[in-house]
Amino acid sequence: MASPKKKLQGLVAATITPMTENGEINFSVIGQYVDYLVKEQGVKNIFVNGTTGEGLSLSISERRRVAEEWVTQGRNKLDQVVIHVGALSLKESQELAQHAAEIGADGIAVIAPFFLKPWNKDVLINFLQEVAATAPALPFYYYHIPALTGVKIRAEELLDGIQDKIPTFQGLKFSDTDLLDFGQCVDQNHQRQFALLFGVDEQLLSGLVMGATGAVGSTYNYLGKKTNQMLEAFERKDFSLALNYQFCIQRFINFVVKLGFGVSQTKAIMTIVSGIPMGPPRLPLQRATREFTDHAEAKLKSLNFLSFAGLKDGHLEACG
Amino acid sequence: MASPKKKLQGLVAATITPMTENGEINFSVIGQYVDYLVKEQGVKNIFVNGTTGEGLSLSISERRRVAEEWVTQGRNKLDQVVIHVGALSLKESQELAQHAAEIGADGIAVIAPFFLKPWNKDVLINFLQEVAATAPALPFYYYHIPALTGVKIRAEELLDGIQDKIPTFQGLKFSDTDLLDFGQCVDQNHQRQFALLFGVDEQLLSGLVMGATGAVGSTYNYLGKKTNQMLEAFERKDFSLALNYQFCIQRFINFVVKLGFGVSQTKAIMTIVSGIPMGPPRLPLQRATREFTDHAEAKLKSLNFLSFAGLKDGHLEACG
Amino acid sequence: MASPKKKLQGLVAATITPMTENGEINFSVIGQYVDYLVKEQGVKNIFVNGTTGEGLSLSISERRRVAEEWVTQGRNKLDQVVIHVGALSLKESQELAQHAAEIGADGIAVIAPFFLKPWNKDVLINFLQEVAATAPALPFYYYHIPALTGVKIRAEELLDGIQDKIPTFQGLKFSDTDLLDFGQCVDQNHQRQFALLFGVDEQLLSGLVMGATGAVGSTYNYLGKKTNQMLEAFERKDFSLALNYQFCIQRFINFVVKLGFGVSQTKAIMTIVSGIPMGPPRLPLQRATREFTDHAEAKLKSLNFLSFAGLKDGHLEACG
Amino acid sequence: MASPKKKLQGLVAATITPMTENGEINFSVIGQYVDYLVKEQGVKNIFVNGTTGEGLSLSISERRRVAEEWVTQGRNKLDQVVIHVGALSLKESQELAQHAAEIGADGIAVIAPFFLKPWNKDVLINFLQEVAATAPALPFYYYHIPALTGVKIRAEELLDGIQDKIPTFQGLKFSDTDLLDFGQCVDQNHQRQFALLFGVDEQLLSGLVMGATGAVGSTYNYLGKKTNQMLEAFERKDFSLALNYQFCIQRFINFVVKLGFGVSQTKAIMTIVSGIPMGPPRLPLQRATREFTDHAEAKLKSLNFLSFAGLKDGHLEACG
Repeated sequence: MASPKKKLQGLVAATITPMTENGEINFSVIGQYVDYLVKEQGVKNIFVNGTTGEGLSLSISERRRVAEEWVTQGRNKLDQVVIHVGALSLKESQELAQHAAEIGADGIAVIAPFFLKPWNKDVLINFLQEVAATAPALPFYYYHIPALTGVKIRAEELLDGIQDKIPTFQGLKFSDTDLLDFGQCVDQNHQRQFALLFGVDEQLLSGLVMGATGAVGSTYNYLGKKTNQMLEAFERKDFSLALNYQFCIQRFINFVVKLGFGVSQTKAIMTIVSGIPMGPPRLPLQRATREFTDHAEAKLKSLNFLSFAGLKDGHLEACG
Repeated sequence: MASPKKKLQGLVAATITPMTENGEINFSVIGQYVDYLVKEQGVKNIFVNGTTGEGLSLSISERRRVAEEWVTQGRNKLDQVVIHVGALSLKESQELAQHAAEIGADGIAVIAPFFLKPWNKDVLINFLQEVAATAPALPFYYYHIPALTGVKIRAEELLDGIQDKIPTFQGLKFSDTDLLDFGQCVDQNHQRQFALLFGVDEQLLSGLVMGATGAVGSTYNYLGKKTNQMLEAFERKDFSLALNYQFCIQRFINFVVKLGFGVSQTKAIMTIVSGIPMGPPRLPLQRATREFTDHAEAKLKSLNFLSFAGLKDGHLEACG
Repeated sequence: MASPKKKLQGLVAATITPMTENGEINFSVIGQYVDYLVKEQGVKNIFVNGTTGEGLSLSISERRRVAEEWVTQGRNKLDQVVIHVGALSLKESQELAQHAAEIGADGIAVIAPFFLKPWNKDVLINFLQEVAATAPALPFYYYHIPALTGVKIRAEELLDGIQDKIPTFQGLKFSDTDLLDFGQCVDQNHQRQFALLFGVDEQLLSGLVMGATGAVGSTYNYLGKKTNQMLEAFERKDFSLALNYQFCIQRFINFVVKLGFGVSQTKAIMTIVSGIPMGPPRLPLQRATREFTDHAEAKLKSLNFLSFAGLKDGHLEACG
Repeated sequence: MASPKKKLQGLVAATITPMTENGEINFSVIGQYVDYLVKEQGVKNIFVNGTTGEGLSLSISERRRVAEEWVTQGRNKLDQVVIHVGALSLKESQELAQHAAEIGADGIAVIAPFFLKPWNKDVLINFLQEVAATAPALPFYYYHIPALTGVKIRAEELLDGIQDKIPTFQGLKFSDTDLLDFGQCVDQNHQRQFALLFGVDEQLLSGLVMGATGAVGSTYNYLGKKTNQMLEAFERKDFSLALNYQFCIQRFINFVVKLGFGVSQTKAIMTIVSGIPMGPPRLPLQRATREFTDHAEAKLKSLNFLSFAGLKDGHLEACG
């Protein structure tokens, strides 16, 4: 590695890819989006082209241009821009990794390939290694999300000795609720400076107590400020307050989960909260229904999340 | 309800059903087992005839006799004896519930039926209600373990208004890692005196931070003392120490999980740690292999869990 | 074995357990039910207390009485009465097996235990063996239904050498769509006189072509006559006609599957077609809705299945 | 459509993508491969860049070049060359579809997107429609493989009225064992000239009896001749002989399935049988082990599949 980057920590927003009404990428609002994250949500790290960003629904050429735009707009404003370069094709993943290095991204992340699947830990590491080697100056993160990929290899086994294979390995996004696995990632690597980022927003507090050093997620786009308050309460050991914040956030997520919650719905919610038009998703996703949007907006209001997030701070009491 | 029981809290050991070498229930060691739990592990609540106790592998007549023996032996020694009375047949479950009341148990618990399955929340409540009604003086607990039953009904939805249907409802054993669901059970019922018992031993700390009022599990049979130390550290807000205890426990569980860990293996471990012969499991389970037992014993020693648990206190440092 | 039974073949109806409106077993209509199967549907073998019969929802004492009634009413009318004696508890399964022998049943069947699960083929065989040994004069059938039990042991592996362990083994009910597994059961055992009974009614023709010697299912209660016509066409090598019958049957099943189809709905359909009141199911099942019943009846009429089944023969043309 | 293509029927080999030892595509053997399929296996239709061809592991540019080579080499030798153009990104799928049209392919096929998933039938059709519209002169096939994609939409529902949305729709590859669904695809579309191709090689006979008009699979690369004999026996209504062939094939597949069977192993088997070097797979797959190859080769010999396939015809008796 050229020079060690500072450790990725705190909240990392999994960015949405804004689109125009006709489904093309809306590059024009990304600058505004950066400012919104920094100023309104207090979030200064981003994870680009991941699940939330519909990264795998974009063409390789689009993924490159999206990555470039976030790096450009984030310069001197964001702390770290991590580009997800995972793809089903190793070659395409390598192309994206090399590109991320060229444009000056702060790190790359890779998901386990999930159509043809690695049969064991060693093959998965081989795959990741081949990607990492094409960007030898960039911190490398593994994106662990077994429920989506069907790759059941435990993260703690993968991390065992991984820096021998991938010297740039710097951590993982752990998007699963198996906190035995996550806890052992923390416990067995306490002497390394890994970023062990929890990826299940609605139960972040449980990840924090198990030693998470940060979090990556879609809700930090619009609930980053509230989540930061939870992080601060947790740091101060005010667990009761931290739990109050967690419950506030859960009430919202629990509500939308019952309505059907995915990337499409995240785009709609972010549009409401930030005022920046995120546009429709791309096929195979379908725009959130008007009914969803109306219900979500009403809930945001009743929890006082709208004024909180967009204009002036709300009262904790109002949440609930 | 005749008279309100005091709230079930703290650790609840899911008891093993001891067996003789020829596979019959070994009633003779249950008294010794009670003493061991109380004196060596500091555990004064038990959950009888659950998964760990091979409850569903026993005949109804055996389940009755096992329940009786624990109630008898636990008198004046244990705080609460909860009997799992769940069965695929409603009639058998009702028979067991009535019997639990007759012998003076402190509560009953019921798992969702899992062969023919309830299609929605209302049918599940109807089923539970029919069982609860046969023991109208006993606190009623729901045993939520969706990964084993395949019944995906969310616990927080089930709890919504449940006391209107089941006046004796007093809480649940939540054996799942979905802490959005569990958190909302806590959040939405904070004005009720429910016992919200977490059932995933290896990540209990994550349940505690989300508001668990206690825990039910198999490992409290032999790691109860260490887990109680974790609970105390958590109460004192010494999260760093609590996490140390959690990691110690995880190191052991993580180790045995990789070897293949289930009720058979729990019987073998408990025999090693307590010195009380738990005997083999009953078919369709098979006795743990000698190889497993040897490895588990070596690990217990290396973590200093044996002296800790059985004789004199170990050193926290030794764990690891 | 005392004396070899004749081989179980052709259609075997998985019997419904008729109930009264208040949920007790309605023994009074079983005689009429036997006559209906024989006279109207041409079905002379039955499989009692299986999934369709809600066997696992009944108490052991009820299962005994139901078995007795079918054996009694079937005497001199039915060819073979097979009693499903599978249970989660080995002891209860043994009690039922012994009872089946005492009452003069023609065979017993056992499902793999599915709460605590056998870890491999050998343990499963041990379990089955312990049951079979209590009824040494009765043909023994294995009930293979991996999607419901979660026991993924392949049937062809189980059958390899099974008669060395279970001398009474006579065949299996194969309720799965893996026709590689089923085909190899047939291929590898062609020198044995096993009854290899297919259990996925809606695609029986695919099982027949792969060598099935018969079929067990719930739809033969009300579509037995039509299915027998399919069997006859298949025997005559008139595959085109056989496929026509299969498609007719599929149109009905495909229709009800979309509405939600299970044991409750089977009870409602059988009541409509046979005129014999099957009553409601027992909890955790819930009575089929009026809406379902109306739609199903209309579909039966439009396919000419009602007149066909209940009164006089319909026209094949009318089906569709 | 410009001019209606003749209906795709009979066996369609899902082609392997040959690679050199260093993992690049080995275009040089594709001509030889075409000749082998036609002359030795009697297979004149191919499905390029599907699962077997590691299509999703290739870059878009590689997929284009592979498609071109097969079309070029197949000219005047093959009947139909269908190119799988499915991709997670709609844009890339469209690019591949347009390219397939330009190079003169005979059809295109598309798998349901499987990372972000279509929530219902209509969204899936929208996605397929957008791809199909870019190649308006090419027959369009849907590739249905729910176990791999996790997209549970039933094929018969998808086909209902699909030509209104996708005028070029010509059929599907049905890679699933749900023969109710497949049967209803056949039954409900008997007046259309759809190619309803069965995709589970090891139970093709069950698909044929349900009305399959052909088959797509990886084993037709090396067991095409034997499978064609099965098809001929089936056509002649010699079901007993057809079943013998099916069982022969099953014995081989059943054997390798137990050793672990996937695309890597298919490459190794094809190399053995055809003598054409298929090379290693690409990551995330790993080369088949020497142990696998040795066992597979021995089994091929014992079944007389080697001489059969490669040199001179074997004896049916030898198979087994």
